[in-house]
Amino acid sequence: MFLRIDHIGIACHDLEKQIELFSRTFELTVVVREVNEEQGVKEAMLHIADGEGGGSYIQLLEPLSEDSPVGKFLAKRGEGVHHVAFGVPDVADAMAKIGEKGVRLLDERPRHGSMDSLIAFLHPKDVGGMLTELVQSAKPSQNG
Amino acid sequence: MFLRIDHIGIACHDLEKQIELFSRTFELTVVVREVNEEQGVKEAMLHIADGEGGGSYIQLLEPLSEDSPVGKFLAKRGEGVHHVAFGVPDVADAMAKIGEKGVRLLDERPRHGSMDSLIAFLHPKDVGGMLTELVQSAKPSQNG
Repeated sequence: MFLRIDHIGIACHDLEKQIELFSRTFELTVVVREVNEEQGVKEAMLHIADGEGGGSYIQLLEPLSEDSPVGKFLAKRGEGVHHVAFGVPDVADAMAKIGEKGVRLLDERPRHGSMDSLIAFLHPKDVGGMLTELVQSAKPSQNG
Repeated sequence: MFLRIDHIGIACHDLEKQIELFSRTFELTVVVREVNEEQGVKEAMLHIADGEGGGSYIQLLEPLSEDSPVGKFLAKRGEGVHHVAFGVPDVADAMAKIGEKGVRLLDERPRHGSMDSLIAFLHPKDVGGMLTELVQSAKPSQNG
């Protein structure tokens, strides 16, 4: 079901400051910056590696407002890991399979994520306390 | 510097219960179970993919005692993501490069991690609130 660890989403107060820290400390390159109004974040993807069906990244997230999901997370827990995303071949198919096992889906249908991906979130309480994202990359699988 | 996302370490109260949940929900296979007395945990690695220099895993962690690092984490934050580990070609070399950039290392020298790897931890306050582990896999790089 999972092709790769797609990204680690890290909540921060100041995106530009955090990009500077991560790119300098770990010698990583920013491949895209985006604003996702629907999710209430501005974000950057720092490339780590390429894998089956897509790449692996660190995703830095700054909330657009305090009452957005990432804004509330920062107020409650401070900066750090907000979610973990796993690459899947087909997000709708993965949602159906996981939903059948009794895990609550936070999305009824796939929505748009970073870099034209299709994504869906799972309820953290049903998967060990980890806010979990499924990602179907827009980039075709390297293995067809 | 980073070859891959090596693993996501997830703290839990009951390792066997969590193995059952993760393997069933995400169709993952346990490749190794270990007890690490030095770190005060028993753990299992669930395989996701193979990458450059080693694999990618979900690591489930149950503390051996309440006063271990993972035991204290659970008491404070509950079940969820405890740390994130990145694969590096040479952990001592990565420690030196990262230390030079002003990031505090939690280990003075590499120590033994899961599956005969060599590991070191970085201070979460210096890297965006993420407890970060560097992993040099015992498995040789697929690219030499």
